[in-house]
Amino acid sequence: MQKKDCRLTYQGDAVLAGLLAKAGSVYTVAEVRSLISGVLGSAEERDPEAWCVLVASSLSSALVAQLVALKDQVAHDEAPAPVEAATHGKRLAAVRAGLAKLGVDGFLVPRADEFQNEYVPAGNERLQWLTGFKGSAGAAVVLADRAAIFVDGRYTVQVRAEVDANLFEFRHFITEPPEEWVATALKAGQRFGYDPWLLTPAQVDKLRAGVTKAGAELVPVETNPLDAAWERRPAAPLGPVRPHDLEFSGKSSTDKRREIGEALGADKRDATVLTMADSLAWLLNIRGSDVPHTPLALGLAILDKEGQLDLFIDRRKLAPGLESHLGNSVAVRDMAEFGPALDAMGGKVVQVDPATTASWVFDRLGHAGAKLVRAADPCKLPKAVKNEVELDGSRRAHRRDAAAMVRFLAWLAAEAPKGGLTEIAVSDRLEAFRAEGARFRDLSFPSISAAGPNAALPHYRSGPETERSLEPGTLYLIDSGAQYLDGTTDITRTIAIGSPTAEMKDRYTRVLKGHIALSMARFPKGTTGGAIDVLARLPLWQAGVNFDHGTGHGVGSYLSVHEGPQRIAAFADTQPLMPGMILSNEPGYYKEGHFGIRIENLIVVTTLDIPGAEREMYGFETITFCPIDRTPIDLSLLTVDEIAWLDTYHAKTREIVLPLLDDPAARAWLEATTAPL
Amino acid sequence: MQKKDCRLTYQGDAVLAGLLAKAGSVYTVAEVRSLISGVLGSAEERDPEAWCVLVASSLSSALVAQLVALKDQVAHDEAPAPVEAATHGKRLAAVRAGLAKLGVDGFLVPRADEFQNEYVPAGNERLQWLTGFKGSAGAAVVLADRAAIFVDGRYTVQVRAEVDANLFEFRHFITEPPEEWVATALKAGQRFGYDPWLLTPAQVDKLRAGVTKAGAELVPVETNPLDAAWERRPAAPLGPVRPHDLEFSGKSSTDKRREIGEALGADKRDATVLTMADSLAWLLNIRGSDVPHTPLALGLAILDKEGQLDLFIDRRKLAPGLESHLGNSVAVRDMAEFGPALDAMGGKVVQVDPATTASWVFDRLGHAGAKLVRAADPCKLPKAVKNEVELDGSRRAHRRDAAAMVRFLAWLAAEAPKGGLTEIAVSDRLEAFRAEGARFRDLSFPSISAAGPNAALPHYRSGPETERSLEPGTLYLIDSGAQYLDGTTDITRTIAIGSPTAEMKDRYTRVLKGHIALSMARFPKGTTGGAIDVLARLPLWQAGVNFDHGTGHGVGSYLSVHEGPQRIAAFADTQPLMPGMILSNEPGYYKEGHFGIRIENLIVVTTLDIPGAEREMYGFETITFCPIDRTPIDLSLLTVDEIAWLDTYHAKTREIVLPLLDDPAARAWLEATTAPL
Repeated sequence: MQKKDCRLTYQGDAVLAGLLAKAGSVYTVAEVRSLISGVLGSAEERDPEAWCVLVASSLSSALVAQLVALKDQVAHDEAPAPVEAATHGKRLAAVRAGLAKLGVDGFLVPRADEFQNEYVPAGNERLQWLTGFKGSAGAAVVLADRAAIFVDGRYTVQVRAEVDANLFEFRHFITEPPEEWVATALKAGQRFGYDPWLLTPAQVDKLRAGVTKAGAELVPVETNPLDAAWERRPAAPLGPVRPHDLEFSGKSSTDKRREIGEALGADKRDATVLTMADSLAWLLNIRGSDVPHTPLALGLAILDKEGQLDLFIDRRKLAPGLESHLGNSVAVRDMAEFGPALDAMGGKVVQVDPATTASWVFDRLGHAGAKLVRAADPCKLPKAVKNEVELDGSRRAHRRDAAAMVRFLAWLAAEAPKGGLTEIAVSDRLEAFRAEGARFRDLSFPSISAAGPNAALPHYRSGPETERSLEPGTLYLIDSGAQYLDGTTDITRTIAIGSPTAEMKDRYTRVLKGHIALSMARFPKGTTGGAIDVLARLPLWQAGVNFDHGTGHGVGSYLSVHEGPQRIAAFADTQPLMPGMILSNEPGYYKEGHFGIRIENLIVVTTLDIPGAEREMYGFETITFCPIDRTPIDLSLLTVDEIAWLDTYHAKTREIVLPLLDDPAARAWLEATTAPL
Repeated sequence: MQKKDCRLTYQGDAVLAGLLAKAGSVYTVAEVRSLISGVLGSAEERDPEAWCVLVASSLSSALVAQLVALKDQVAHDEAPAPVEAATHGKRLAAVRAGLAKLGVDGFLVPRADEFQNEYVPAGNERLQWLTGFKGSAGAAVVLADRAAIFVDGRYTVQVRAEVDANLFEFRHFITEPPEEWVATALKAGQRFGYDPWLLTPAQVDKLRAGVTKAGAELVPVETNPLDAAWERRPAAPLGPVRPHDLEFSGKSSTDKRREIGEALGADKRDATVLTMADSLAWLLNIRGSDVPHTPLALGLAILDKEGQLDLFIDRRKLAPGLESHLGNSVAVRDMAEFGPALDAMGGKVVQVDPATTASWVFDRLGHAGAKLVRAADPCKLPKAVKNEVELDGSRRAHRRDAAAMVRFLAWLAAEAPKGGLTEIAVSDRLEAFRAEGARFRDLSFPSISAAGPNAALPHYRSGPETERSLEPGTLYLIDSGAQYLDGTTDITRTIAIGSPTAEMKDRYTRVLKGHIALSMARFPKGTTGGAIDVLARLPLWQAGVNFDHGTGHGVGSYLSVHEGPQRIAAFADTQPLMPGMILSNEPGYYKEGHFGIRIENLIVVTTLDIPGAEREMYGFETITFCPIDRTPIDLSLLTVDEIAWLDTYHAKTREIVLPLLDDPAARAWLEATTAPL
């Protein structure tokens, strides 16, 4: 108790200054306060003291206690004012005043930030700050007298709950996107602004087409009017950046940089600009904690054909030893030097990815006289094709994850019949099981814990107002995953609570048939995910139903839970599936207002040795092991081969997970649920 | 006998002049000779007298006899010198001399002609004239000291047999295309020529990239040096152009033009330039005979948003009554007026299809100051989506075709065991059966009649040197089709001659399983052919084998046997399948040097009414009815559903075809071969 008290009381700047000096820290107290602001702007780590390594390499317990206490104090001091009824109206007014000052008549607010990540740091949650909308995709347009928010079909209900209809018109992001809306909402001669750091060149072109249609002009702005109006905006994130050991990455950064540099040289390119944080993490074998759920360190880089790399990053967030990990051929430079570094590339042939790089970079390189070659980020494909060390790590991580899932499902099977379970409490329980596993770092995304009709929303997220209790006669859907040092997991199970209806059983069995069909697929080298997506849908199509999301997404190696370029989805796909790629296999079925079903395992593309084969053939290795609920299966719909697949899968699951379980109840549950059909 | 003699003797210009005057023909004898040259440059019609309607609307038998006799004489007089060993060397030399005169150092010779058709008129067979190569795809490049011919994998054997290796280097069209070859073969500062009528803008861009890499310059030439060097080049084709009756087209040209014009107007386009002959045939409800196998009338058109159309075509080939069929809102103009008509489009917004339109058109419109909008030919999609009248016609045509196929297969079953049958004689027999059918006009493509190892070449074409006899213990493959006034057919059957091996049965059954899987597919609105292509391949993939062609191509309505935009193939497809589209379903398997298998029916996309369906669902109606050989089936590989499909298909085939057969032997054969498995 006493120690805890001590930790929680900040004893003043003088005390901290003394401790800093004693520890040999390079920082003053004022600098530590600034550093803490950045830490507060990053994703919270599980270990509340972990960030302290950024202050000094040798830390006394007294210093750690004072740092943690100071962080609490800064968090309290810098906490934004609570959101009230009038908050978003005031913010909108402040942005409009900013627009007037900039001399523009309107402005686009995308959800994406400068780094085009799925998860963004708190200080880049601009769309949410302006509108209150908490969804993961969308945009807003602010004009002098009107404003609109654009969300897709997933969020049409949520947006009405979160956003004030008196401030923003609600528009559909897909059927009436911002560029179409501005084409009618703008007046001829007006100037419409955008932040060139937040849009790719292709997005700018689309927006320009709409703006021009109205006879207006599209103009980039130098400073984002939201950022200027944002009081107490969270600081740029300073989550500690740590080495990702060779034990997990399987290949040195030097080798990766040399190979990519050589490929650039062979294509007659002098250098490439890298702006995707997951590319940097992979290329440099580093992991950070700037954003939730994905261990990214936000930064920018220029890689030349010799494999030399300039890393533009806030040096304060590099954990001790990181620079020596990076080595001599990586130069750490200040973020502010990035623009001048681009200016110095005149005459050089520079490869830039138009799908992921901010328009600002293209503009700046263009002005510098660089010869731009638009091509995919060269880290994308080698990152997607995992090496044996990464695959082994992923398999190990999945076994630990399976143990947590089995403990959770056994607990759920025991508790659910008693009643009273609610979505958030249930997923919290699962998180607790996972957190006990070795090498656990974080969830890989916010769990989707959906009871009854809530599961009919594929991207549902529980809230205190929306969560339901798990009732008999319903299906409970849990889609979750974790980040372990050696791998990223993502799994969905749909569990019968009590007795399912015949309709639920029919749909569940069709989803399972699709899942099995994809698992068993064999296909020749060169086949795309788009070509085999149908296998997961056909059993549903036979009944005239379908699901409106992709069947599978790429998954990283202790990195993004959604990564490209591999996918299994009904779209014009040109990326062949290649051995070593990890993907999800997650067909589903959703009946609005009633129930939802999804069954998801991760699968790895592997080479097959088929006797008599004339082609190089690939298939999938399933690496997720966790019982698939047999209660909702309509056995009459399964073929002999499908039953054999499920029995084999369950036998292997038992074999792998049983040795990892101590709890007799969980062991008994696993043995019962993995018995042959 | 006497009448025939009379027909065959041309009695002199004076006699013909008298007959022409009596018939009220507008032509002099000299003009008739010129017209005959054009008829000789077109595809030969079945009726040798049919072209005579172009001379006068009322024809005496004496006039017809003299015209036919004169045509024979002109054909004899204008016949090109026979090809000898030295012929292609001389032609190549003449082209090189032409290049020097034009001041260019090299020239590209594509196979495509000005109209980008699959089949080209005799006078546009430039690649064959220059090199001797008779394949349907390829290109040649002529430089001062080197020349190369480029063909794809289908033609690597054939090109060696047909082309002199001392004149042309052999290159692979796909792995080392012309644009890559010129990048190394050209020298800096050289000028490389192309005919802007023969390449699309995208093809020009690709070629330019290669030429520029060599430091050379790409230049369009005004006159094609091949055409200049070509002695006795067949004249531009003058096959008679006739109305395609509403009874077959189901929709008036006026309605089609109005609807497409309105769509252009809605998209703010003033007009479109149409260069695809099948678009013109569909839009104007006309059919011609300028090229073999597809009833096209080569011409060009400009359609404006009011539905008014300028048709640029040689007026001499319009059969009597055609102009009144075209009506007041179609202006027939001379081909020579096409360029000036483009020149007059300055300031207009003009839609042009970059995938099918000659670069020449883009250049001319660009110089004229037209605002070019690149978009697909607006006839493409409505032409592909057949109306009920077209579908009924196609079903009727397929029933007649089925009767011919069954008569043929029954004959084959009786004759093959006797031995001595050879490929060309067998396919000639099939053609004779087809030609007896009502509304038969032509084959829809040259039949692929392939015995034993020849069938392992998917695009094999029999020749006197290559044809084989049908031997016991082999598979015989026949891929053929016909043009009927009411529909186009395309069917492949693979027939066991004697007893097939176990390997043949395994592969045949897997091909059949793929064929059936695609036939039975149900899919929601919006699904592309690329998304379901896998269904036809999966049974082969399970054994580690595949086939290297698409599963299905679009088919026209008494028009092209290969038509877009619909396809079923493993590529990044964005065109949804739509009800009314006709496609082929033709998986196969090819074992080089041994045997080949393909099973092809035509299928129509139809709407399905599935009880409980939540989506708009489509499926396929099979419209080809002809027994599928049961001898090579390995029953143990078929599921109950697959057996049921085949039995149902055979029962329906018997029901449809039996009433169309008189021959007792054919009837007995049909009954036996359509019995349940």
